[in-house]
Amino acid sequence: MTLREKAGQLNQRMYGWDAYRRTPDGGFELTEALYAETERFAGLGALYGLMRADAWSGVDHSTGPGSGDGAALADLVQRHVMERSRLGIPALFVEEVPHGHMALDGTVLPVNLAVGATWDPELYERAAAHAAAELRARGGHVALVSALDIARDPRWGRTEECFGEDPSLAARLTEALVRGMQGEVGAVGEVAEAGEAQDGLFADDKAPVVLKHFAGQGATVGGRNSAESELGLRELHEIHLPAARAGVRAGAAAVMAAYNEVDGMPCCGNRALLHGLLRESWGFRGLVMADGLAVDRLARITGDKVAAGALALNAGVDLSLWDEGFTHLEEAVERGLVGEDVLDAAVARVLSLKFRLGLFERPYSADRSAQPPSPDRGRALSTALARAAVTLLHDDGGVLPIRPGVSRIAVLGPHAATTAHQLGDYTAPQRPGTGSSVLDGLRRLAPENADIRHARGCALTGDDRSDIPEAIAVAAASDLAVLVLGGSSARTSGTEFGANGAALTAVSEMTCGEGADLAGLRLGAAQHALLDGVTATGTPTVVVLIQGRPHAVPEAADRAAALLTAWYPGPWGGEAIAQILLGRAEPTGRLPVSVPRSAAQLPVHYNHKDIEYGAYVDESAEPLYSFGHGLSYTSFAYGRPRLAQRTVDVDITNTGQRHGRTVAQLYIRRLLTPVWPRTLELRAFQGVDLAPGEQRTVTFSLGADQLVQVGADLETGVLPGTLEIRVAESARAALTAVPVVLRIDE
Amino acid sequence: MTLREKAGQLNQRMYGWDAYRRTPDGGFELTEALYAETERFAGLGALYGLMRADAWSGVDHSTGPGSGDGAALADLVQRHVMERSRLGIPALFVEEVPHGHMALDGTVLPVNLAVGATWDPELYERAAAHAAAELRARGGHVALVSALDIARDPRWGRTEECFGEDPSLAARLTEALVRGMQGEVGAVGEVAEAGEAQDGLFADDKAPVVLKHFAGQGATVGGRNSAESELGLRELHEIHLPAARAGVRAGAAAVMAAYNEVDGMPCCGNRALLHGLLRESWGFRGLVMADGLAVDRLARITGDKVAAGALALNAGVDLSLWDEGFTHLEEAVERGLVGEDVLDAAVARVLSLKFRLGLFERPYSADRSAQPPSPDRGRALSTALARAAVTLLHDDGGVLPIRPGVSRIAVLGPHAATTAHQLGDYTAPQRPGTGSSVLDGLRRLAPENADIRHARGCALTGDDRSDIPEAIAVAAASDLAVLVLGGSSARTSGTEFGANGAALTAVSEMTCGEGADLAGLRLGAAQHALLDGVTATGTPTVVVLIQGRPHAVPEAADRAAALLTAWYPGPWGGEAIAQILLGRAEPTGRLPVSVPRSAAQLPVHYNHKDIEYGAYVDESAEPLYSFGHGLSYTSFAYGRPRLAQRTVDVDITNTGQRHGRTVAQLYIRRLLTPVWPRTLELRAFQGVDLAPGEQRTVTFSLGADQLVQVGADLETGVLPGTLEIRVAESARAALTAVPVVLRIDE
Repeated sequence: MTLREKAGQLNQRMYGWDAYRRTPDGGFELTEALYAETERFAGLGALYGLMRADAWSGVDHSTGPGSGDGAALADLVQRHVMERSRLGIPALFVEEVPHGHMALDGTVLPVNLAVGATWDPELYERAAAHAAAELRARGGHVALVSALDIARDPRWGRTEECFGEDPSLAARLTEALVRGMQGEVGAVGEVAEAGEAQDGLFADDKAPVVLKHFAGQGATVGGRNSAESELGLRELHEIHLPAARAGVRAGAAAVMAAYNEVDGMPCCGNRALLHGLLRESWGFRGLVMADGLAVDRLARITGDKVAAGALALNAGVDLSLWDEGFTHLEEAVERGLVGEDVLDAAVARVLSLKFRLGLFERPYSADRSAQPPSPDRGRALSTALARAAVTLLHDDGGVLPIRPGVSRIAVLGPHAATTAHQLGDYTAPQRPGTGSSVLDGLRRLAPENADIRHARGCALTGDDRSDIPEAIAVAAASDLAVLVLGGSSARTSGTEFGANGAALTAVSEMTCGEGADLAGLRLGAAQHALLDGVTATGTPTVVVLIQGRPHAVPEAADRAAALLTAWYPGPWGGEAIAQILLGRAEPTGRLPVSVPRSAAQLPVHYNHKDIEYGAYVDESAEPLYSFGHGLSYTSFAYGRPRLAQRTVDVDITNTGQRHGRTVAQLYIRRLLTPVWPRTLELRAFQGVDLAPGEQRTVTFSLGADQLVQVGADLETGVLPGTLEIRVAESARAALTAVPVVLRIDE
Repeated sequence: MTLREKAGQLNQRMYGWDAYRRTPDGGFELTEALYAETERFAGLGALYGLMRADAWSGVDHSTGPGSGDGAALADLVQRHVMERSRLGIPALFVEEVPHGHMALDGTVLPVNLAVGATWDPELYERAAAHAAAELRARGGHVALVSALDIARDPRWGRTEECFGEDPSLAARLTEALVRGMQGEVGAVGEVAEAGEAQDGLFADDKAPVVLKHFAGQGATVGGRNSAESELGLRELHEIHLPAARAGVRAGAAAVMAAYNEVDGMPCCGNRALLHGLLRESWGFRGLVMADGLAVDRLARITGDKVAAGALALNAGVDLSLWDEGFTHLEEAVERGLVGEDVLDAAVARVLSLKFRLGLFERPYSADRSAQPPSPDRGRALSTALARAAVTLLHDDGGVLPIRPGVSRIAVLGPHAATTAHQLGDYTAPQRPGTGSSVLDGLRRLAPENADIRHARGCALTGDDRSDIPEAIAVAAASDLAVLVLGGSSARTSGTEFGANGAALTAVSEMTCGEGADLAGLRLGAAQHALLDGVTATGTPTVVVLIQGRPHAVPEAADRAAALLTAWYPGPWGGEAIAQILLGRAEPTGRLPVSVPRSAAQLPVHYNHKDIEYGAYVDESAEPLYSFGHGLSYTSFAYGRPRLAQRTVDVDITNTGQRHGRTVAQLYIRRLLTPVWPRTLELRAFQGVDLAPGEQRTVTFSLGADQLVQVGADLETGVLPGTLEIRVAESARAALTAVPVVLRIDE
């Protein structure tokens, strides 16, 4: 290969939607832009977002590929690439799959924060497998998946993309994601430990993943998107790396180097992180992709983009995204800024991934056997995840599930009758009629005699209160009000975007998503007024929050008879919520993040260092709702844990009148230890379904994942010491749970 | 010395106020508690707070030592100690001197945050020298001084004890503090660089300082007092260590190891910090004292206090404060937890400090020549600092200085007519009539025809609005309103304290100080209502904030004609404020911290990493007022900087009609650099007094202090690269100032 051909393999320069246009006959044709790109490098390394459709790309059902013609478009592009490549090297088609394939007709899943609330890796693994199969059937190859960001500041608009605040919960869900999407292909990292082949081929319905973002992006200061971090290496290792390490162990094909800086250097230029830690310590042999335009940002300190590209390549980046820097790698080698051996190693990783996908033998979708998976199965999995995520935070009035005698139900609020805002960021336009709102779900599932009335009340944002009186009147005339409030990451055509797709100006009702950080964590002012007005009627009010972050709405905790959060539950979230409100399903969600009382008390995590702190003069320092919290329609009793060797048994009993699922959470609390401990650390969990009166013994094994610690010199292992094991229904409950003590000797 | 005698030298166990009581004849007698303590160790290492008087100690003018009898009490205690000590080793008397000697009759200075606002190390050095002389004349030996904490989160109640958010500003003021208090005694650290004697004796009017706190205490999460830190080592080195390093270079006799944890270990148990960095890298040969009860806290991970004491001693702590752990050092040595050689080294440091104070030859105050310094000089210095600290934030109406024609002046607000809340934390009870409020100052200094009326309006805290109408009426009937609002660190007898003196419950009007953290950064609700009501009258309103942290009061910026902050200006602050309001002095203060718009946008510093970030959806990410900002009654023009070798010249002209002082601030902005830079870094400043029309050339030398950088592996030095030099009146102004570029070659 020539130097130019090699450099070409490391570039992922174009937006995929610029590569094609619709022809008058409804087909597709390729563009001069694509021709220019393949000409420039005599081929094409990778193409981003060929299927992407959203407000940023401007692609919709009239212009973009759907489930019926996506594969044909992919093959059209691939044929052109193969023709331009002297050596016949196919391109990688890289697609966004943060919660389902973000393409027209792709099955939208609940966002990661909702997935975190399910505490159900097995269910998520099946949903991830479905998404990969959809992607591959459409001609896509590689899935960009959110997984590694840890939600440490709810002001951040990308909190929705996190599995939560806890490293162990995120690690288990990341493993499930990798297993679901990639199938069994052998681990790419941890060679010595895994002892497995690293070069397994991907099945035709499986997709290699790019885990994003590596590393520490959830810790940027002030919850500001892709801003700086003051993150120390200990915090990085203890909180932000475990999910990445678990994903690498599970065999993840690639990681995406993040925008943020860690210990003095942005991840894309951070050789200590990408090379020293990821490749050398962890034995990772997969691909490192840069986040969009992150390489070019390095020119701030290198002085030009050629040197920026060299810095990134030397640091460990293999494949760029949209950057100019990597287009000059030929010059960088010639100027001596980077060795050709370094370039060769990166090229080998890109080619290896193409090989593992079978692209050299079968470059075209038409060659492959994968059939599109059933849309009904996709819908069922999405709905199941949504249902499992809905979390009952309080039910002081005992109003839930809604009793049959409750006939007049007011369904109110800006989220009540629309699915547009329950989808999360990235989402492609939905075909009319897709999904169900809470109002849809209640109308379909409520008893026939139910009198369901709706008023929107207000918009998600702003302070227009003109429609609030109508909503109050409807509430006053009802036996129960269901008030659906929250936020939105829905982008509209008026949004301005940066070159990397992040929102520059949040318009319309968008207060969340990439580029939409929210300082005050409050809902729109009119929503608060609506909450005040509806609860003041005296009609028992169930507040449902649909949101991509925990908002601070302590008023709802005070005034609502019951409070639930569904996060962004996806298109069929309304159906799932209605099932739970009506008692057709049990609430099983548990909080993957602590819910703050206000932005002023941030940060609020359960797993802070173990220091006694009372309160601020003006506010508690404790969260409103604890990590791990979630009520059931029944109740559970946990027995004293019993320790035998490295096994803990706990008897759990359903002490109520209904079937239910509790999530048994195993926390450790270190006593004698070489470094200052956190108050509690979640290290294992199990969902347990129990019939009324049923008792079961849950067994946890205490292996390296449960006992591992980051020692004084950041060495990671099972260190001598003593620790308590506590099993409870939430982090707060664990504080007073009866412990057993485990001693770990030298 | 026996092992027990050695251990005794490392203990500072008692509260000094428990060592004596007043006799009916007005003298003092010693207590059984002191006898027991000296008996236990056959002597006494150090005694804390013999002169302390405050709500915590319960000492007041009826029970405690004043300026007239403090020395006699000290000698009484010392005589007892000498008698009980087999080897005749005198005790160290250690006193709180955070802003003047915190004892009855001690001259109270403005708090450190106000000192930071002066940007005047020379003035501060003189005030520090005065405080040391007062301390020594009273029989005290060692001064505990706040200096090293950097204000990174204004929610922290100890923000008032910081010189501000900037490491260079803090470093220059720490040097001034050390020079002022200790005089010329030779450097204790940086042997190789300084090449000076390290064992110089302290003059009789000088006091060795304990710089507190080492290190990183300003970075605890959430602004929570002595809580955990997620601080990384880079942030520690770049932001939190420079003041300590400067203080060590200047010869500081001791540092206090902080409560907070750094990289996995509380400072008192952190050998990497106390030994590796402080002693080995920096060459520090002085004493390390633990913060109060900080050693015992280590028992959380060691399992018992004996091991906690051993851990602290091994880590580098020489002298404890109130801990039980250090009382068991004899047992710790016998159990083999710590070597006797380690103990011996610590004892040698304690004895060395006693020797340097001349205590072996002249243990008693009566032996020494120091005369009490003049109280009038103390008052003059305190007032000068207060005057220099008052900072004019805006004057949109041009209402200041108050014109002679303004005759009816309303002086309003809970701070207007009292000095009780302008003193800051730690402060001893003041004798009646000490100091002046803003009302006092205006009444004394305003033209004779001025009609000055006062109404308090409301209390500092709470929402009692009953007196607000009266204040509004007074405002409405006046030509100008001076509204004095703010916070308070004044402790009352109802306050509950922890064993270390931190407030456990903030009662009365206390919202600041040690243990009083404020999540929302808001004034009491009634103060906001008072502000609304007074400004709504249409009477031009000058708002003066007296506070120990920047509160978020954007309403004042919007509605007041002019806004000033005086921080806690000390007893004579009202006089200083009145001088400035009336134009008898010029406003010269500059902000040592960024002023946030709200708690929701924290953190807000000028010297964040250089990342573009627009804004939150609901709020700007920029501060309301920038670091370095402060207006004058005149105006200044800055010329283009000229660079010749390592010298920068800037022409500055007073372009207004009045005399004034500008603070020329030199910032660097790194361009080509091995680690990601901050947007700006203050590296030098000079106050420049100019008559109307006068021009002067200010010259800055660019030495190691200006160019030093923390490199990729935390190595600290002048590294190759290019950088811009900008000279401006604030950090915000520096962003658009014309730069000169300096290239630093290998």
